[in-house]
Amino acid sequence: MRSLDPPGTAIREVVARALAEDFGTLGDITTLGLVGEGTLGSGCFVSRSSGVIAGTAAVTEVYTQVDADVGVEWHAYDGEEVMEGQILGRVGGPLLSIFMAERTALNLFCHLSGIADLTRRFVRATHGGRARIRDTRKTLPGLRSLEKAAVRAGGGFNHRDCLSDAVLIKDNHLHVFDIVEAVQRSRARWPGRSIGVECDTLEQLERVLPVKPDLILLDNMTPEEATRAVEMVAGRVPLELSGGVDIGNIADYAATGVDFIAVGAITHSAGAFDIGFDLD
Amino acid sequence: MRSLDPPGTAIREVVARALAEDFGTLGDITTLGLVGEGTLGSGCFVSRSSGVIAGTAAVTEVYTQVDADVGVEWHAYDGEEVMEGQILGRVGGPLLSIFMAERTALNLFCHLSGIADLTRRFVRATHGGRARIRDTRKTLPGLRSLEKAAVRAGGGFNHRDCLSDAVLIKDNHLHVFDIVEAVQRSRARWPGRSIGVECDTLEQLERVLPVKPDLILLDNMTPEEATRAVEMVAGRVPLELSGGVDIGNIADYAATGVDFIAVGAITHSAGAFDIGFDLD
Amino acid sequence: MRSLDPPGTAIREVVARALAEDFGTLGDITTLGLVGEGTLGSGCFVSRSSGVIAGTAAVTEVYTQVDADVGVEWHAYDGEEVMEGQILGRVGGPLLSIFMAERTALNLFCHLSGIADLTRRFVRATHGGRARIRDTRKTLPGLRSLEKAAVRAGGGFNHRDCLSDAVLIKDNHLHVFDIVEAVQRSRARWPGRSIGVECDTLEQLERVLPVKPDLILLDNMTPEEATRAVEMVAGRVPLELSGGVDIGNIADYAATGVDFIAVGAITHSAGAFDIGFDLD
Amino acid sequence: MRSLDPPGTAIREVVARALAEDFGTLGDITTLGLVGEGTLGSGCFVSRSSGVIAGTAAVTEVYTQVDADVGVEWHAYDGEEVMEGQILGRVGGPLLSIFMAERTALNLFCHLSGIADLTRRFVRATHGGRARIRDTRKTLPGLRSLEKAAVRAGGGFNHRDCLSDAVLIKDNHLHVFDIVEAVQRSRARWPGRSIGVECDTLEQLERVLPVKPDLILLDNMTPEEATRAVEMVAGRVPLELSGGVDIGNIADYAATGVDFIAVGAITHSAGAFDIGFDLD
Amino acid sequence: MRSLDPPGTAIREVVARALAEDFGTLGDITTLGLVGEGTLGSGCFVSRSSGVIAGTAAVTEVYTQVDADVGVEWHAYDGEEVMEGQILGRVGGPLLSIFMAERTALNLFCHLSGIADLTRRFVRATHGGRARIRDTRKTLPGLRSLEKAAVRAGGGFNHRDCLSDAVLIKDNHLHVFDIVEAVQRSRARWPGRSIGVECDTLEQLERVLPVKPDLILLDNMTPEEATRAVEMVAGRVPLELSGGVDIGNIADYAATGVDFIAVGAITHSAGAFDIGFDLD
Amino acid sequence: MRSLDPPGTAIREVVARALAEDFGTLGDITTLGLVGEGTLGSGCFVSRSSGVIAGTAAVTEVYTQVDADVGVEWHAYDGEEVMEGQILGRVGGPLLSIFMAERTALNLFCHLSGIADLTRRFVRATHGGRARIRDTRKTLPGLRSLEKAAVRAGGGFNHRDCLSDAVLIKDNHLHVFDIVEAVQRSRARWPGRSIGVECDTLEQLERVLPVKPDLILLDNMTPEEATRAVEMVAGRVPLELSGGVDIGNIADYAATGVDFIAVGAITHSAGAFDIGFDLD
Repeated sequence: MRSLDPPGTAIREVVARALAEDFGTLGDITTLGLVGEGTLGSGCFVSRSSGVIAGTAAVTEVYTQVDADVGVEWHAYDGEEVMEGQILGRVGGPLLSIFMAERTALNLFCHLSGIADLTRRFVRATHGGRARIRDTRKTLPGLRSLEKAAVRAGGGFNHRDCLSDAVLIKDNHLHVFDIVEAVQRSRARWPGRSIGVECDTLEQLERVLPVKPDLILLDNMTPEEATRAVEMVAGRVPLELSGGVDIGNIADYAATGVDFIAVGAITHSAGAFDIGFDLD
Repeated sequence: MRSLDPPGTAIREVVARALAEDFGTLGDITTLGLVGEGTLGSGCFVSRSSGVIAGTAAVTEVYTQVDADVGVEWHAYDGEEVMEGQILGRVGGPLLSIFMAERTALNLFCHLSGIADLTRRFVRATHGGRARIRDTRKTLPGLRSLEKAAVRAGGGFNHRDCLSDAVLIKDNHLHVFDIVEAVQRSRARWPGRSIGVECDTLEQLERVLPVKPDLILLDNMTPEEATRAVEMVAGRVPLELSGGVDIGNIADYAATGVDFIAVGAITHSAGAFDIGFDLD
Repeated sequence: MRSLDPPGTAIREVVARALAEDFGTLGDITTLGLVGEGTLGSGCFVSRSSGVIAGTAAVTEVYTQVDADVGVEWHAYDGEEVMEGQILGRVGGPLLSIFMAERTALNLFCHLSGIADLTRRFVRATHGGRARIRDTRKTLPGLRSLEKAAVRAGGGFNHRDCLSDAVLIKDNHLHVFDIVEAVQRSRARWPGRSIGVECDTLEQLERVLPVKPDLILLDNMTPEEATRAVEMVAGRVPLELSGGVDIGNIADYAATGVDFIAVGAITHSAGAFDIGFDLD
Repeated sequence: MRSLDPPGTAIREVVARALAEDFGTLGDITTLGLVGEGTLGSGCFVSRSSGVIAGTAAVTEVYTQVDADVGVEWHAYDGEEVMEGQILGRVGGPLLSIFMAERTALNLFCHLSGIADLTRRFVRATHGGRARIRDTRKTLPGLRSLEKAAVRAGGGFNHRDCLSDAVLIKDNHLHVFDIVEAVQRSRARWPGRSIGVECDTLEQLERVLPVKPDLILLDNMTPEEATRAVEMVAGRVPLELSGGVDIGNIADYAATGVDFIAVGAITHSAGAFDIGFDLD
Repeated sequence: MRSLDPPGTAIREVVARALAEDFGTLGDITTLGLVGEGTLGSGCFVSRSSGVIAGTAAVTEVYTQVDADVGVEWHAYDGEEVMEGQILGRVGGPLLSIFMAERTALNLFCHLSGIADLTRRFVRATHGGRARIRDTRKTLPGLRSLEKAAVRAGGGFNHRDCLSDAVLIKDNHLHVFDIVEAVQRSRARWPGRSIGVECDTLEQLERVLPVKPDLILLDNMTPEEATRAVEMVAGRVPLELSGGVDIGNIADYAATGVDFIAVGAITHSAGAFDIGFDLD
Repeated sequence: MRSLDPPGTAIREVVARALAEDFGTLGDITTLGLVGEGTLGSGCFVSRSSGVIAGTAAVTEVYTQVDADVGVEWHAYDGEEVMEGQILGRVGGPLLSIFMAERTALNLFCHLSGIADLTRRFVRATHGGRARIRDTRKTLPGLRSLEKAAVRAGGGFNHRDCLSDAVLIKDNHLHVFDIVEAVQRSRARWPGRSIGVECDTLEQLERVLPVKPDLILLDNMTPEEATRAVEMVAGRVPLELSGGVDIGNIADYAATGVDFIAVGAITHSAGAFDIGFDLD
């Protein structure tokens, strides 16, 4: 495996599910009716666009599960910037199997590359400042592990994987508890774990600073408010911006000096990256 | 159930997977540390945008699986056009459970509504002509059943569910077989099933017309070529356009007189529809 | 539950799998297109033949999983002899759900009743002698638990559930070991477990008798040989006949005085029992 | 894979389930107690009857899952007519694993060959007329994919895989809707999909003909009625007979000129085909 | 749910697996043969020892899955100290179901209470100092979620749930990288995540202190070394002791002033807590 | 496979679950951040204690699932007595994969060896008498198959695998039925299966002896009572002691002449056996 890959256990499950879904009861009836068993063939994945790719391990797993006799070799890897028309990888073996696997392979490859590519565009739009792009829990059901790996391939960083991994006190929790009390209570309950808290206003920020959470989320602030927040915090607590950020305004947010910018869109709204499969 | 819902078996599996993924080993540690067991609460799903929604059955299932004591009531349904600020549904019961379920519910709701809404925008852009919008097999792994239901909610129609459901001879198959022979062979092998064939050129179309496939896909044609194809076919075989269609040019394609326009983007590139959850 | 039912855990798994298989990606598109959500209906299961039924718990589970709002009430139970035309049970609730569940319910009901009924016919053909009908491990993959319960409903008895449950030394094992040594070795290895051994000849039987296995299988013997075996054993070890038994000759075998007759056909070759579903 | 095989994903699941069911908690305790780890052996599958076989891919998968060191080679393939006493395939490797896998392998092989063989007998009984034998959804829960492949091996053709794949308006639906309206409504709802309708009488047939469904099922008609139906339809719509067909009367039905004859019995009532496993 | 419970999704999976494992193919044949379907009964869980219990949610789920008609009410809850002879909860309903569920319910209850109780004994042995008891990843396969909840019930705290949740650089990693470089590299790769590092010696501690990891694990140190480490660190980084700690020496370790003591034994070596089930 | 191994199907499921649990969403983030993809390494499992090991097949499976390129070779096998410091096996291949698999491999290895070792200690404490140590159904949920194999590795024997495998009438059943009637009823219902019955007193024993069950469990008797029971039974029925047995008093119980002693503790309360993994 490569260090950008999601766990193999997750890849295997996602691919098995995807293949079962696409094969249905009879399998690929078009191909079964047309292609003889002994026919060999080969083809390649070609980028139809320029950008960053991800998902090669999942694509390899698709062929492994369909037919161990299909060989896959990659000419580009997760996280690499590719050009329109570039050959990304080659596949060879029984044509029957190559045809059957094509759509599932492309569905995974295009979706994960779409995430990596959109992430990279956000990263680039920060103009190399200190702010890092982070993902959120706004991932598609059943695909989080692969999507979070694609974010890393794009140069982003992973925030919480799930509800179990860190405390993050959000506005809804603050309906029930005072912000300072919420942090203290969480720290007592989960000592040694990272305690984050979301602030909607500078007043909240001021109140919570003395208890020093491990992360403060500035939610839906303007760049001006964020700049003011950075000054108030003065490096004592890492700051993460979220809400209202898009590719057009992220440079302004990145310039405020925050440590992280959380972008839900890189997972919940990344379109497919255009990759095709061409038979030789 | 309602007639736009995907099968309950599929919903249950997707939701169980999504919850397991988001709960991790410990569950929602933030909420477990803050909210008492007896505390009740309520909240509502509010649309932050105008458009079409889908996925209410999946959202209901999220709460059912988290805690049967949470009640859900809907004020809007799949396929309905909603306004920004409109309350879509209300949730009430143990606050602990309401908090834990929120992100999984929203991930499903926003994703599926995003698909329904984008589908509706394509439908509307055809200006009510004969052409119907159809989905493709370009769906996200593990979510096809729910996504295809969302397409129907948006006013689109479902093409093949999987490789097993109809023959569709594509360009790659035509590397191996002549188009006429491929149709005949498929019909002999799978009598009684729909045999579709993809034509890239009007020459191919002319050759294949005499064997009368059940569907002809016109792949990557200009509106002019498509118009010419419609004339050639003269209603003898249903025609479906695919490739190169976007929201900007779909009206031109719809005007050609084809029966269907297949749009991969409605499932592979629909962004999340903006829905929020507000605690009362 | 009732005492003839298979474990609920097994029923739930079989039914979930069967429904997923029959619903596919879109569900029952015929019904979804025709039946309104609010429409209620009812119907009944009617026997189209006379015989013994089984599987009512599985049928109930089908409706539970499809729609908890469908009510099921039974007028006949597993193991009961029913007449052609008899109403076996009634179903009422949302018509949409009643239609969707019908085929899966009938597939289970007819298959399991077919097993119960064939078992009962074998039982009856023994003319009430001491010989009991037992099933084998020749069951259909994934359905053993439900099929073995259907055998009990038919008045048969269950032999080994699986390879883990008792030692049964068969002719193939005797290629490797002498019959006496095989019994002794097995008893030393698995003390306290039932040790059975298959004898193809009376010579083998004579040799193995002194080590007193817990069960002797007489394999492919004629009624005359079996009678001789019963005399030789004189009640010291339970005897089971297997191989070459059919509904025509079982009376002869039963008359030999053996304790058990194993019949693979009751699970591997029982045809469907004819049950229909009539809408009111 | 071979073109008659079911999808590998389906085979893997069925085999894993079958093995888990047969191994139970301890595994094959008889064999574990008798056969040493290093002992090698071999054996062959022998047909004990004449007929058509199916299921070789599933049998191979059984050995693969039990022990990758067991080699399997086939001398006959799915769809082939074999003679009593013919060696169908050979297995060699660790004897421990060969013994453990035997029953699961045979259960699958005999069941699927039973389906293929019964199908072939129905096919042959049509005396080579235009009528093709088709299966139904009356398959055993969890085994549909493998059973439908066995039908193809027997020379039959596959009807609907599941409720999702085509519209089929049956008598129960006609309790709710008029037959013509039902067809029109279905076509509007699922354009491009095959719309079938079941007719119990020639009157229904006459009424539905003008709306030209894609398939008409003649349900429970006599050969005379069916002949009359064929004349009325005159090739405008494919006709399928179902109900009341058995191996004795199918020739009469086939002679009517219908396109398809649906036979539930080939999946719901095929007995096991007799195949044995002989150790060398 | 209660705030000490593991996620319901995890409980459901563990219980379904446990029941399937204990029911096997036929279910509880002893009870099926003895207890009539209509017989009702009740019983109670009684502590046969004094200590802390956990697992009540899992026990409730066992009865829910076996038979929804069995009612369960608790007189004691997770985390509570109970006395020998104390009634912990009562169960009532169909006797058939109560018998079938007993062993699975007790297996879970005794195992999880064993963990809670051992944890509490370690907690108590720290004599209320600042040191908190933490669990490790040394949990039993498939049970981590329930075991970590039991640790919390015992008054312990949860360390990493899994490899994905925080960086923890251990001695094996330091075979490859220098300790300082390892921390820096990890921080760059996973900014915002907790970076822990294991130190075997005070020299390593001294070297790593300037880069301020988020947690330092003191591995296999004597109380004297640990005391020296606490002085060196002077509160700048939280310290966790691990290795060589047992119930006899933990007071000495707790007195050193470290923040956490990790005890693998509370999950990998907790014996069953003695709870019985008495029929009324 | 080796003859002490649990079924491979069970091992694969347990290992897949354990790895998924430990990898979480992102996988081993520590190692992914530190170790290059091409780096190779090796290490060995070293016993840190003297005793009996078990679980090598499960450990091998862990590496197979993580990375097929990791090689495992064993220097000691299940059931072998090993010395402190002894190298048990070696692992070599991509370092990334070796690190990721370590904890899961050790969790299984230490737990299963703990069971084998404790079993051996009980076996040894019987001083080689006729009494054999048997396990119970008091196993940890989801792990029974592997734990029962570990008991065999320790020299113990397996009692019932599950509720389906033999009749065992316990005190709770005797609340409902008289002991003699319970045996007779069970024998009629499940002829050919082993019928065991638990006796709490010598009076019960006396009453049940005439109906000759296949096994009598002497529950919670003193060695004196057990000796008296052995005399009364005089070899007519196998006797098993259970309840109140520990490593200190088992010699006294073994000396009574019973056939089996059931010890729940060997599965429900075996601590982890201390095995470490040392990188070369």
